[in-house]
Amino acid sequence: MEYRKLKDQEDDEEAAVGGDAIESLRGKAHSLTNVAALGGGTAIERSKWKRKSFVTFALTVLTSSQAILIVWSKRAGKYEYSVTTANFMVETLKCALSVAALSSIWRNEGVTEDNRLSSTLNEVIVYPIPAALYLVKNLLQYYIFAYVDAPGYQILKNLNIISTGVLYRIILKKKLSEIQWAAFILLCAGCTTAQLNSNSDHVLQTPFQGWMMAIVMALLSGFAGVYTEAIIKKRPLRNINVQNFWLYVFGMVFNAIAILVQDFDAVMNKGFFHGYTIITVLMILNHALSGIAVSMVMKYADNIVKVYSTSVAMLLTAVVSVFLFGFNLSLAFFLGSTVVSVSVYLHSAGKLR
Amino acid sequence: MEYRKLKDQEDDEEAAVGGDAIESLRGKAHSLTNVAALGGGTAIERSKWKRKSFVTFALTVLTSSQAILIVWSKRAGKYEYSVTTANFMVETLKCALSVAALSSIWRNEGVTEDNRLSSTLNEVIVYPIPAALYLVKNLLQYYIFAYVDAPGYQILKNLNIISTGVLYRIILKKKLSEIQWAAFILLCAGCTTAQLNSNSDHVLQTPFQGWMMAIVMALLSGFAGVYTEAIIKKRPLRNINVQNFWLYVFGMVFNAIAILVQDFDAVMNKGFFHGYTIITVLMILNHALSGIAVSMVMKYADNIVKVYSTSVAMLLTAVVSVFLFGFNLSLAFFLGSTVVSVSVYLHSAGKLR
Repeated sequence: MEYRKLKDQEDDEEAAVGGDAIESLRGKAHSLTNVAALGGGTAIERSKWKRKSFVTFALTVLTSSQAILIVWSKRAGKYEYSVTTANFMVETLKCALSVAALSSIWRNEGVTEDNRLSSTLNEVIVYPIPAALYLVKNLLQYYIFAYVDAPGYQILKNLNIISTGVLYRIILKKKLSEIQWAAFILLCAGCTTAQLNSNSDHVLQTPFQGWMMAIVMALLSGFAGVYTEAIIKKRPLRNINVQNFWLYVFGMVFNAIAILVQDFDAVMNKGFFHGYTIITVLMILNHALSGIAVSMVMKYADNIVKVYSTSVAMLLTAVVSVFLFGFNLSLAFFLGSTVVSVSVYLHSAGKLR
Repeated sequence: MEYRKLKDQEDDEEAAVGGDAIESLRGKAHSLTNVAALGGGTAIERSKWKRKSFVTFALTVLTSSQAILIVWSKRAGKYEYSVTTANFMVETLKCALSVAALSSIWRNEGVTEDNRLSSTLNEVIVYPIPAALYLVKNLLQYYIFAYVDAPGYQILKNLNIISTGVLYRIILKKKLSEIQWAAFILLCAGCTTAQLNSNSDHVLQTPFQGWMMAIVMALLSGFAGVYTEAIIKKRPLRNINVQNFWLYVFGMVFNAIAILVQDFDAVMNKGFFHGYTIITVLMILNHALSGIAVSMVMKYADNIVKVYSTSVAMLLTAVVSVFLFGFNLSLAFFLGSTVVSVSVYLHSAGKLR
């Protein structure tokens, strides 16, 4: 398995590189006058924890506002714009934001080995893989609707939670405790319960092909997420904005391919930005920021935190929608939210020591 | 608080009596030739565990066949018999079975301090309390239907799980670990989820009085269960059949009162056994055996095991009904069962050491 190999290399590199990383962080901690006196370790731990909490919080807020924008745009009428061009714009914006962040860093710290944009083929060669996986998954999405309706698909998407957990274990070789596995199963069951409505039972009639496609899509999506984490964590000292730049450049390339394959005629006839409204622009902005937040979570936390963050965001969205759009919360929503909350507690209570 | 006092006494007594109990069990273990050689402790533990498993298994099977009999009797037509006379018959049968078990014990072991039927006022005075609590709860049941429909009441009955856990902690002063509390919340959420159907959201419209009555009923039922455990465990050496006899005698008395209050005219005009069928007889037999199994679980295990046992029985019933009556299982049922299964796992994984 190629990915196993990647991981093995990574383990070796991390072992080799870990010392340097700690050295470099120690250097920074030493420059702080008072905190360093207490021992660099605590200050580093605290600052790492703060950074991790901040990116997790940002991802949660951005994901829930994303869902609210989607509801808002649906209420405003039909999607008129082409989804592929919007996706391309998201990648372009993320790329531009990464370069902007980098130029500010270059101005302040100068260009170093860790933050220079140029790179070796060896480093860059893995970056197209997540983008390619997402492209395949998005193309499959068109076919699965032959077997499952849209609400059923929303339910089946919760399989992502399980596939992410399993692939996280297999590919990144990170161990979850038994309690954390139990918590992960609960997260999946709780999210699904929260989304139940009177038509949800239809999903049980999904034909075999539909189940297979849903499982393949969950695996593709879980694999893309876990693989992105592997790429980003492989070089812990590399600046995240450089890593993002390369991820997003290939995102642009693969989304350009999607435009050619799916929307070439529409774009040619109606124009690239046909049907764009203020909501479309806001959605693109939001997707770009959420995308960057996802990368940051991969760098400073992991896929498990990402899954929890987006699941909690789903619940937040529903609660906010009560106030914004007068939605009613169902009993299933309350029960699902309870299970998700217990899962969050168990995930932290079940940490391996 | 009277119950606190009871428990304090019990703690003292258990401390004083514990030694004797172990002595007496050691005596029995010594008479076993081979096992005793390995050390009495292990053999005792194993036999305790076997007995606990057996009564738990019996309760689960009896409870699920109970529910299946109810479905069967509903399919066979309307209830024609009076529920209060049936309840009285259940108590009478349990009483008779306890006496039968006792006479066999007397024949084999002779009458001892622990298995004699006669008792002090001090011992007997607490036995009417659970029966009285159940009577009040059953009377309230008639009034709650002014605020909640029958399926809504089924949903609200899951509050029993939480009230049992809380009262178990307060009255019996037994500690559950944090993981076990989480498991208990999940058990309640999972059971409720498994029972969800398209009308379940009505329960959210339950008026304040309905909620209050449901909570009071849950507390009464939880209290009766926990109090029964306190009574039975207060005298660990006392034969369970004697304890059952006294419980059921008062059960007969209070159910006789219920007949007088609710069904006096009907019984006078139509006769005591009006409308009894073979299903009614089977249901009475089943309720009697389940009742005895509940007492055994209280003696050899506890209320928490009882709640888990009856919850799992509820899920088993649904699965068996698929085969017997061609029921369909809903997605909510699968999700709820998953949550209940994880809860069972967490309850044992979270044991305090």
